[in-house]
Amino acid sequence: MKFTVKQIAYLLNGEVRGDDSLTISQLAKIEEGTTGDISFLANDKYEPFLYTTKASAVIVGRDFEPKKDFTATLIIVENAYIAFTQLLEEYQKILDFSKKGIEQPVFVGENTTIGEDIYQGAFSYIGKNCKIGKNVKIYPQVYISDNVSIGDNTILYAGAKVYENCIIGNYCVIHSGVVIGSDGFGFAPQADGTYKTIPQLGNVIIENNVSIGSNSTIDCATMGSTIIREGAKIDNLVQIAHNVEIGKNTVIAAQTGVAGSTKVGNNCMIGGQVGVNGHITIADGTRIGGQAGVTKSVKKSGTAINGTPAFDLNDYLRAMSVLRKLPALEKQVKALEEHLLELNQQGVLV
Amino acid sequence: MKFTVKQIAYLLNGEVRGDDSLTISQLAKIEEGTTGDISFLANDKYEPFLYTTKASAVIVGRDFEPKKDFTATLIIVENAYIAFTQLLEEYQKILDFSKKGIEQPVFVGENTTIGEDIYQGAFSYIGKNCKIGKNVKIYPQVYISDNVSIGDNTILYAGAKVYENCIIGNYCVIHSGVVIGSDGFGFAPQADGTYKTIPQLGNVIIENNVSIGSNSTIDCATMGSTIIREGAKIDNLVQIAHNVEIGKNTVIAAQTGVAGSTKVGNNCMIGGQVGVNGHITIADGTRIGGQAGVTKSVKKSGTAINGTPAFDLNDYLRAMSVLRKLPALEKQVKALEEHLLELNQQGVLV
Amino acid sequence: MKFTVKQIAYLLNGEVRGDDSLTISQLAKIEEGTTGDISFLANDKYEPFLYTTKASAVIVGRDFEPKKDFTATLIIVENAYIAFTQLLEEYQKILDFSKKGIEQPVFVGENTTIGEDIYQGAFSYIGKNCKIGKNVKIYPQVYISDNVSIGDNTILYAGAKVYENCIIGNYCVIHSGVVIGSDGFGFAPQADGTYKTIPQLGNVIIENNVSIGSNSTIDCATMGSTIIREGAKIDNLVQIAHNVEIGKNTVIAAQTGVAGSTKVGNNCMIGGQVGVNGHITIADGTRIGGQAGVTKSVKKSGTAINGTPAFDLNDYLRAMSVLRKLPALEKQVKALEEHLLELNQQGVLV
Repeated sequence: MKFTVKQIAYLLNGEVRGDDSLTISQLAKIEEGTTGDISFLANDKYEPFLYTTKASAVIVGRDFEPKKDFTATLIIVENAYIAFTQLLEEYQKILDFSKKGIEQPVFVGENTTIGEDIYQGAFSYIGKNCKIGKNVKIYPQVYISDNVSIGDNTILYAGAKVYENCIIGNYCVIHSGVVIGSDGFGFAPQADGTYKTIPQLGNVIIENNVSIGSNSTIDCATMGSTIIREGAKIDNLVQIAHNVEIGKNTVIAAQTGVAGSTKVGNNCMIGGQVGVNGHITIADGTRIGGQAGVTKSVKKSGTAINGTPAFDLNDYLRAMSVLRKLPALEKQVKALEEHLLELNQQGVLV
Repeated sequence: MKFTVKQIAYLLNGEVRGDDSLTISQLAKIEEGTTGDISFLANDKYEPFLYTTKASAVIVGRDFEPKKDFTATLIIVENAYIAFTQLLEEYQKILDFSKKGIEQPVFVGENTTIGEDIYQGAFSYIGKNCKIGKNVKIYPQVYISDNVSIGDNTILYAGAKVYENCIIGNYCVIHSGVVIGSDGFGFAPQADGTYKTIPQLGNVIIENNVSIGSNSTIDCATMGSTIIREGAKIDNLVQIAHNVEIGKNTVIAAQTGVAGSTKVGNNCMIGGQVGVNGHITIADGTRIGGQAGVTKSVKKSGTAINGTPAFDLNDYLRAMSVLRKLPALEKQVKALEEHLLELNQQGVLV
Repeated sequence: MKFTVKQIAYLLNGEVRGDDSLTISQLAKIEEGTTGDISFLANDKYEPFLYTTKASAVIVGRDFEPKKDFTATLIIVENAYIAFTQLLEEYQKILDFSKKGIEQPVFVGENTTIGEDIYQGAFSYIGKNCKIGKNVKIYPQVYISDNVSIGDNTILYAGAKVYENCIIGNYCVIHSGVVIGSDGFGFAPQADGTYKTIPQLGNVIIENNVSIGSNSTIDCATMGSTIIREGAKIDNLVQIAHNVEIGKNTVIAAQTGVAGSTKVGNNCMIGGQVGVNGHITIADGTRIGGQAGVTKSVKKSGTAINGTPAFDLNDYLRAMSVLRKLPALEKQVKALEEHLLELNQQGVLV
């Protein structure tokens, strides 16, 4: 990529303040930018870097007012962050190696249909009776079992695994090491202390525009389907148990686990390392703090909770601020007790 | 599967109340059942669905007394849950695609023996000097290193990895992405702040009837063996460190970690996201709540604990109920102090 | 391995007390040792096993004074643990199967250069424009994308995955199922509640002597690099988010997660299941207890913290000791209140 500041400003529908003939060849963070780089400033915290950066150009918002001198040319836009994201996308399109074609060897089972313009990496496996959409990218060592359906434009990165009967929508991104459709954790205790495996006959349905991070696991339903609704974004090493439903546009950070049969609403934001109990319901728009342990249903939309067991976020923050002072509080109570006792002994009190 | 209610009742040794000629073609959850489905009712919580379900038949326990009208035919059995599980098993047997045979390409090292009726998926790898039992299913992209022994009827799903010298018993189920026998986390600190790797020379022994969920990791012992005893059930993304021993029929939920050299007893139940310290012992039948952090040995069988650091479950529940009220408690103490202070100042007290 | 006690003592620069002609054929833990085994005693906790062990020889430190009789021959060294580690290393060298050569089939893209004495396992994949150093071991089913550089003597175990543009140094060990360079979790919220993917254009740089445990995930940077500095040791199932930097010789136990853009200093020790917030800085030599949730930067070197949210370790331990007694403390406060109230009512106080 080699463009002038003027060209980039045109692309972003922005206004230039400074030299618009400078050549830009790279994107960089404002604190790391050097000559030829373009960066952006969207957060006041980073403003000091504007006055020291060596980046040739910096994208800023319309309402930004510099307080000191600096050397970079500015591109002024409505929203600096969104404009920069736009630029990243354009940049990626240029970088995109557009993997296409079929490497060898691959394995494809009988009665499987595969759409146009596919990439099929070496050592990838597709079972029988599958339906693979067009423009799908199946990276090396991906495993797709029998009776699987994968929508158009979906990407499965190297080593992703999909068990039988699962359905994945369009424009999904499944990262390396993800396991979709493995058996739910269902074991019936027997009288002799052993456990009998409960057959897991259901599947996983992943709707359109879902993203699933590396090494996450999504178990199939005992019966019916484990469902990840449209637009949900799931980070790395997340566990979604059997018969769970994750709502539309819900975002789940890394290492969180959702236990069996729980229904998480739409537009929720779940932090990292959260545990959500089985057989409960989480209302739309719920925000759950990192490491929280959610033991009960959340009924009111837009609730914010934290802690283990999780409760109202504000109450949690207040309780945590006292937690640190517990030893002092204990001493205080002891002192009060002794004070009263002493008064009693002195005969001041009856 | 197409059977009449009468046939299913016969199979389950149950008694029919209603039309026994109805045709059943599918299993379903009671809240989702439609015509042609059979469901079950084992939990009072789900009883309301009986009165609204469109399932053709519902399996119930002998002591169940309906309180309203409903349309489904009942099959009355001793234990509805166990009967339904039985039905699921029969159903699975029919569905079972019975993977057999050897796909191409596969890799098999020298001096390796493989039993009868095996399934060996494409791109699977078996090293040298291995002993693979009969009726074993090795799915595509499985990796089995040198000197590994795998018992009869065990299943390794796509992409499971087994390092050298490990021993896996009969009737085990190892899900996708599981890593068995990777190096324990052992590093000796050096005077200059760097760490030297301590060679990990032991192996992992997995006894019969063990189940291990997707992407779980079980490290080899430094010396000797990390051992998973007969009938243990381990969920997804669980970490078992070097030299750990997990007892018979112990159940471990997702994302739990057990640190090095710890011995977990038989018939324990460990919740999700639990952390168990290294070099401790957990007594038989211990129950550990989700997200607990177990720092000390549990000596008494049948103990229930929770919290971080974990302690007696009842004490934990009581402490947690006060935790939320900490800010109120703090205010209360301050008020008492002020009360006493005021009295002192008023001269009521000396 | 068959050596006499005398030979081993010579190797370890130790002094023999007992029969130095005994033959040693195996290494064992002191509580499990039998005839022909050599073991070590470095921790007082294990001293009772010395008096019962059947091991032929035990390595002990110079300052150890036995308190009872025992049968084993002693090898007395400066530091028993270090000496034993040395012995383990020698043992491993003998065991080392020294995988070399190229199995078939493998995939290698164009313009990729591969050094001498490499091991390339079957079904491994190396993309185009890669540079693979000498004596590298690439186990079966490893995936290395385009433009990747891997230094000399590095090992990638079966099924490890490396996305494009990543750089891995010399003498690194990457275990099975590790994913390096997958997309960071970056999504920009849109007005309609959906999320737009922020392209992740950066890479991961792993310096020399780094070890990464099974199924851990290290995301690429949005721009620039996620960096794991020289000598860092990372356990299994750890999540390192985009743009994170992990300092030299820092050790991270299993199932810990570090959120985006956080900088962890050198020589830190981070326990298992720890969560570290994004965009913060952790000073050199910080020690973080298991399951802690670190929400704020740690500024002072050598700080020890624990808890969620994490604070000073000593304060944490004190607070936790009171936490268990909270119900008692609550009762105490109520009793004080009632006492004062009663006195008020009796007219003792005004």
